[in-house]
Amino acid sequence: MALVKNLSILGSTGSIGQSTLELVKRHPDRFKIVGLAAGRNIKLLMEQIEEFKPRVVSVLNEDDRRVLKREIPGDIECLHGVEGARNVAVIDEANIVVSAFVGAPGLTPTLSAIKAGKDVALANKEVLVMAGRIVMEEVKKNGVRILPVDSEHSAIFQSIEGHRREDIRKVILTASGGPFLYMPRDKVREVTPEEAMAHPNWKMGKKISIDSATLMNKGLEVIEARWLFDIQPYRIAVYIHPQSIVHSMVEYIDGSMMAQMGTADMKGPIAYALSYPERMDSGIIPLDLCGIGRLEFMEPDIDRFPCLRLAFDAIKEGGTMTTVMNAVDEVAVEAFLRREISLTDIPVVIDAVMQIHDIRKDSSLEDILDADRWARDTAFEMIKSRHRVL
Amino acid sequence: MALVKNLSILGSTGSIGQSTLELVKRHPDRFKIVGLAAGRNIKLLMEQIEEFKPRVVSVLNEDDRRVLKREIPGDIECLHGVEGARNVAVIDEANIVVSAFVGAPGLTPTLSAIKAGKDVALANKEVLVMAGRIVMEEVKKNGVRILPVDSEHSAIFQSIEGHRREDIRKVILTASGGPFLYMPRDKVREVTPEEAMAHPNWKMGKKISIDSATLMNKGLEVIEARWLFDIQPYRIAVYIHPQSIVHSMVEYIDGSMMAQMGTADMKGPIAYALSYPERMDSGIIPLDLCGIGRLEFMEPDIDRFPCLRLAFDAIKEGGTMTTVMNAVDEVAVEAFLRREISLTDIPVVIDAVMQIHDIRKDSSLEDILDADRWARDTAFEMIKSRHRVL
Repeated sequence: MALVKNLSILGSTGSIGQSTLELVKRHPDRFKIVGLAAGRNIKLLMEQIEEFKPRVVSVLNEDDRRVLKREIPGDIECLHGVEGARNVAVIDEANIVVSAFVGAPGLTPTLSAIKAGKDVALANKEVLVMAGRIVMEEVKKNGVRILPVDSEHSAIFQSIEGHRREDIRKVILTASGGPFLYMPRDKVREVTPEEAMAHPNWKMGKKISIDSATLMNKGLEVIEARWLFDIQPYRIAVYIHPQSIVHSMVEYIDGSMMAQMGTADMKGPIAYALSYPERMDSGIIPLDLCGIGRLEFMEPDIDRFPCLRLAFDAIKEGGTMTTVMNAVDEVAVEAFLRREISLTDIPVVIDAVMQIHDIRKDSSLEDILDADRWARDTAFEMIKSRHRVL
Repeated sequence: MALVKNLSILGSTGSIGQSTLELVKRHPDRFKIVGLAAGRNIKLLMEQIEEFKPRVVSVLNEDDRRVLKREIPGDIECLHGVEGARNVAVIDEANIVVSAFVGAPGLTPTLSAIKAGKDVALANKEVLVMAGRIVMEEVKKNGVRILPVDSEHSAIFQSIEGHRREDIRKVILTASGGPFLYMPRDKVREVTPEEAMAHPNWKMGKKISIDSATLMNKGLEVIEARWLFDIQPYRIAVYIHPQSIVHSMVEYIDGSMMAQMGTADMKGPIAYALSYPERMDSGIIPLDLCGIGRLEFMEPDIDRFPCLRLAFDAIKEGGTMTTVMNAVDEVAVEAFLRREISLTDIPVVIDAVMQIHDIRKDSSLEDILDADRWARDTAFEMIKSRHRVL
């Protein structure tokens, strides 16, 4: 039996956080929860605190912290804000930090976890999209591991394990194509947030569901893969695979391709990240390939999904450009969810802001956070003023 | 750069032997040929001797040996028969023996190679079908490796590499289903050897092509996998996969499935076996999954392919039963190629001989060779006398 691993979870009330806790519940002999950081879902957090008895918890706001503090045992440290999340990330006894905040707020606490020598189970892809170079330098310097929790990166990780990195010819990320893969393009312009959130295969949070509909999610994953596996963008390809069964593939120099497959359930990659280098029962329904019958693969239509092209452009440009792309996407998705712009406006806004961004290369964390702020402000103004591109 | 590996090839003029030599030609800095053993194709063997300059060669018959001896340089040792092949297999300077004879004749020289401490690149699956327990005991005792050259077993090997054996839940071998997958069953009774040899995806020798049409090839592979990966038969499944792109798969306890894919070209598994643990360029056309478009999977129809059931029965019975099954299959395939019986008679003969075989468990090599002879004689007589089952 393996040693008990102590976990801190950043984003415990989100979709990944909840699945992580389900796995912990299934394997009480393997894991102990030491820290939980959440956003504003205090009700669910309280239930989690009662069940898993962490030593430190944190919420987004001071007000929520005060409410929470009154309700939970006095020996639990109760914090808030970025500093609170950072504290949850660096708890002494934590071995693995599950980084599952949505978007930019995860960067600082995740970096702190790495600097504190923690292995990171990374679901929060924006950490690498915003600051891949800096994060991977810290990973190396501190001798820690990033264990991917995205299904695609977990698939790549599993397809590389036991094989030599220098033998890799190509990494192929699969994309379901989202709910509008076959919809006429002028109809896509009119889709509602509700339609966009109805992902055909995966049950996920709002932001990632919209990003899956525009394929920006795949773009972010391309950038994530570039850093996580230290692989040049020209070696990364994206295939549309509507069944979401092959989670990704790695092609080697001998023409051999390794692929990882599974039911579309995030508990798969989470379980692998937590139990690595072992495996553990994840409670997932085993794959029934004969029942599914067929797996399809096609080249993505870049005209239909301009976000994918923008992501490849951003990673080739490098420096702060991926930070900017990510920041504008967050603002634009929010605006779409508020019905202020259409789904097809999202890449238009991103492109417009990227066009006027003055890249900083070899950027410091400060440069990155500056670029992030600038991009958000610029995108926000552009949307508010109904800039001519819209 | 890796050290130069010295190879002896058993079956150098066959399909696997020729592909192996193509790879050696492509990587002269990695490999040197020290021994070649062939059957009766003296003409091709002479060309190979001239090109690769082995130190020892062997042919099947004394007469052929005499002819060959006159034609090749005097410093090349020139042998014949089982003893000659055994000598090629144990050459001092050989690091890897490519075991690629067809059928039972490969067993003795392959066992000798293992006992002489050579790693074996195994294409000759009958070695494990006939004497899996004994062979794997010798592998263990001598600290050597068996590197699978079958595409399915190479796929499983690659899908296990880097993952823990104790985490395996299931091994799934894929089968193309052969040329008669969709043919009405009463028509299959009338197919000619020429039709049966026209495999849809793989270019192979005669025996294996017929075995692919009856799915006995898959049955032999199930038995091979049982020994090679020390996995119980109930954990082995077979899926029909007409495209022959996914070469096999391994399912783990967390529901994750690893698969190896590639163009249907035996140079893939040969290259992996020879370059392992590295990889090398194999000259294979890279897989174009989007061009292929779709991969299909179905449960095999055991009524249509009774050979598959016979193989599972044989491995469950154990002892000398798999030896008998294999021996009868060789005799029956020969009879089919001579147009003495129909394709659908093959499993009938095998079943009939298996029914009357008196199994020996914990069998010695002598028991196995006895059972092999008995099974061949019995099958031969049965076919000659048009036994009532036919």
